[in-house]
Amino acid sequence: MIFKGSHILSTDQFERADVERIFEVAAEMRPYAQRKRITRVLSGAILGNMFFEPSTRTRISFGCAFNLLGGEVRETTEVKASSLAKGESLHDTARVLSGYSDIIVMRHPEVGSVAEFAEASRVPVINGGDGPNEHPSQALLDLYTVKQEMSARGRDIDGLRIALIGDLKNGRAVHSLCKLLGLFSGVQFKLVSPPQLEAPMAIVSELLGKGHKVEVCHELEEGIHHVDILYVTRTQEERFESQEEADQYRGLFRVNQSIYTEHCEPNTVIMHPLPRDSRSAAKELDDDLNQNPNLAIFRQTDNGVLVRMALFALILDVAEEVHNHAQPVTWYTAKRKPNLP
Amino acid sequence: MIFKGSHILSTDQFERADVERIFEVAAEMRPYAQRKRITRVLSGAILGNMFFEPSTRTRISFGCAFNLLGGEVRETTEVKASSLAKGESLHDTARVLSGYSDIIVMRHPEVGSVAEFAEASRVPVINGGDGPNEHPSQALLDLYTVKQEMSARGRDIDGLRIALIGDLKNGRAVHSLCKLLGLFSGVQFKLVSPPQLEAPMAIVSELLGKGHKVEVCHELEEGIHHVDILYVTRTQEERFESQEEADQYRGLFRVNQSIYTEHCEPNTVIMHPLPRDSRSAAKELDDDLNQNPNLAIFRQTDNGVLVRMALFALILDVAEEVHNHAQPVTWYTAKRKPNLP
Amino acid sequence: MIFKGSHILSTDQFERADVERIFEVAAEMRPYAQRKRITRVLSGAILGNMFFEPSTRTRISFGCAFNLLGGEVRETTEVKASSLAKGESLHDTARVLSGYSDIIVMRHPEVGSVAEFAEASRVPVINGGDGPNEHPSQALLDLYTVKQEMSARGRDIDGLRIALIGDLKNGRAVHSLCKLLGLFSGVQFKLVSPPQLEAPMAIVSELLGKGHKVEVCHELEEGIHHVDILYVTRTQEERFESQEEADQYRGLFRVNQSIYTEHCEPNTVIMHPLPRDSRSAAKELDDDLNQNPNLAIFRQTDNGVLVRMALFALILDVAEEVHNHAQPVTWYTAKRKPNLP
Repeated sequence: MIFKGSHILSTDQFERADVERIFEVAAEMRPYAQRKRITRVLSGAILGNMFFEPSTRTRISFGCAFNLLGGEVRETTEVKASSLAKGESLHDTARVLSGYSDIIVMRHPEVGSVAEFAEASRVPVINGGDGPNEHPSQALLDLYTVKQEMSARGRDIDGLRIALIGDLKNGRAVHSLCKLLGLFSGVQFKLVSPPQLEAPMAIVSELLGKGHKVEVCHELEEGIHHVDILYVTRTQEERFESQEEADQYRGLFRVNQSIYTEHCEPNTVIMHPLPRDSRSAAKELDDDLNQNPNLAIFRQTDNGVLVRMALFALILDVAEEVHNHAQPVTWYTAKRKPNLP
Repeated sequence: MIFKGSHILSTDQFERADVERIFEVAAEMRPYAQRKRITRVLSGAILGNMFFEPSTRTRISFGCAFNLLGGEVRETTEVKASSLAKGESLHDTARVLSGYSDIIVMRHPEVGSVAEFAEASRVPVINGGDGPNEHPSQALLDLYTVKQEMSARGRDIDGLRIALIGDLKNGRAVHSLCKLLGLFSGVQFKLVSPPQLEAPMAIVSELLGKGHKVEVCHELEEGIHHVDILYVTRTQEERFESQEEADQYRGLFRVNQSIYTEHCEPNTVIMHPLPRDSRSAAKELDDDLNQNPNLAIFRQTDNGVLVRMALFALILDVAEEVHNHAQPVTWYTAKRKPNLP
Repeated sequence: MIFKGSHILSTDQFERADVERIFEVAAEMRPYAQRKRITRVLSGAILGNMFFEPSTRTRISFGCAFNLLGGEVRETTEVKASSLAKGESLHDTARVLSGYSDIIVMRHPEVGSVAEFAEASRVPVINGGDGPNEHPSQALLDLYTVKQEMSARGRDIDGLRIALIGDLKNGRAVHSLCKLLGLFSGVQFKLVSPPQLEAPMAIVSELLGKGHKVEVCHELEEGIHHVDILYVTRTQEERFESQEEADQYRGLFRVNQSIYTEHCEPNTVIMHPLPRDSRSAAKELDDDLNQNPNLAIFRQTDNGVLVRMALFALILDVAEEVHNHAQPVTWYTAKRKPNLP
């Protein structure tokens, strides 16, 4: 794809070269995100950060990424605050809101809504999540983390062995990560879930069709052997028909330090799209792993800022200009670097 | 009026010369809103964007207008987030909040609330809508659009023929637009509504008293003949005593392409204060007009940014300084210009 | 304490010298808050303004303070918009959100939540209120106002005579102010409340232990004699077990102009942490005092901006640099100065 002026709606848009270009720019954003220096390259630009569904983490991450490039952010955070409630079409909302900003990030509970919005928008739109469907920046930050963690171990994404664990049926993040990993070669997937929450057949077929190895597995201990990365997910309780149905999967697969020590290879990376459910009945990824240097979950969210900065820079065509607007940081930056793998 | 430091509370404040001065400045804002260049004239200034009633479009429009001039925006979006719930008077809220910013935009559900707030405020206040009462920036953007559309046809506001269509009883936008049009000369109004939703007598009298021509009309087809502009409005359902009462007017008057082709003069401009109700039972302005170049509804909302920039610039007395702080735009501006009339 | 990089969680952190250092910097912030000049010292810095409980005043005050120093603000305003609802621990929320900004202000309904959050945060955290527990910036702005008002009368905090009036049992602001006043010498406290709403014994003991004079009093008229300052508070109705229980204290102690004239010394300062309850049944501080030049309640909230700017400047270690980034104000500043005492 050519990024300049493009909408980012789906992981289906990307070829391997696209992903690699995004990661190249993301890596260049690190000194700005870590406050080694600041840039004002987007000074005067406005992001419309349109969240028609509750979200703190993703909304703030996009907003900060734009601020880090020097731009301003205007936001909405609730569907009820919108003209949608008065019967306005997504077409009209898009035509109106796209007159106010240079680029839009949109989250909306309905599948396909963001694509419909983008159709009518006069500025580029990034899908910040359309219900259970797509959330491409999450997939990109996950894959970027895979790349960084493997790179720190002298490895690459090609030939990766990864276990995807939990609710693989409803987990949007897992589906998108599979698609992106599929662009690389010789990946070995272990799909670890209860029988009722297996990954959709279409995803398995696609991976097999591209020559990857896929192993389906219903036991946690068996699933986490001999892999480089554990990608643990919470049960997507809000996608079940009833809380009772969701409850039967709560706490079924739990990764903690003792299981990790007993069954995983040394230095197996632990990832999770977050939030993890830390209530005592759930705990799919135990807090007792917090001191484990292989726990990459907060490096993931930090990487999210880099990836989102890269998307903004590429779409608005300033990736080459970022450093020309760089300045030193003049305040005290207390931010500790996360543990490196 | 003198704009410097003034509150903008009601369309009653304006003489014709005031409106023309605002439009002069609004026109100068176009290159900034269209991203031909940026200005930092209000760098360091803070807008308090105080919305005590849900609104996305108006709130974002004001916020972006302030950002486009280089200023910062602090916001509130909900009445429940406010000390008003703890029994605080509008006087106290105004005294406190006006210590935090250089100018305030306020929306509030109660008639007269914004004027009461402004009374105690130590900084200028713009009424962003006080319930069914006033919303002066909407009236100004409507009139600015009238002027621009007529100007593109080699005409002026004087001598305009306009049909106002729909719920003329409850429509705040219609009432305010009538007042502003009344400042010009020889306007011919067609007031097209169901008998129960006619415009208030006071408005008709005022227009007649100023020498304008007013024709009341209960049939859509008859009403849209021989006019320059159709100003269509939705039924203000939230102003009715019951949903049942509101429902009987839903879908009563519908402008669509075939009616337009059959009954309107060529190039009749179509306006609407938005949001339009696109649900199948309503559709007062059909989506099949979206490709009609005379549909000015999105030019209206784009003009809203210009008018709001002009108000900020005049009140804060930087209208003459905007260009001295201008800089080139350095990012890719994908924004397509709206179709010109 | 050393401010650089510190969390501000509790008034217990402060020694007298700390408070005096904050006030020194706060005083230097006045020309920026009053728009005599602007500074861009924090240009490029990001505040995470995380309010997991409704608040307009405090949130906007912190946000504006950061904007006044040149920084950007990203915000959240509602607990339901958060991953906390999906079972995420405060630890995880802190680790994630602290990757997005340079400093965080957090409000949360639970006692101790902000301290727990700060523990895991990688950037400095200011407690913006954790339920009934702590709200240190409120205490600092109150004390700064005491100092300013007394200073205008040629006096100091040492030797102050202050009446604290109202719900002294539940009033967080009163408790914190007592702690800070306790750092000074020879203060005379009159604790004026209904018998059931007396200040906690621990606070009284602490003040007595430090050599201050404390008088407990159940009659308003008696309590407001012979003091320099009245610090009036509303009944903290949300802290009672039932509305009925709260109702019996509503309107019990009311300060108004005639009581003031009859019982107070001339020029007795009137303070209140705001919001005051102006509903007819409550009115603990009557609106008829609004023209009294000794009413300092809006000077308090104005001072809040100065104190918060000072905290940001000290924590981010730019207090000495503020003036080096100063620029003239180029727009019309309508802001009237509050009446001086």
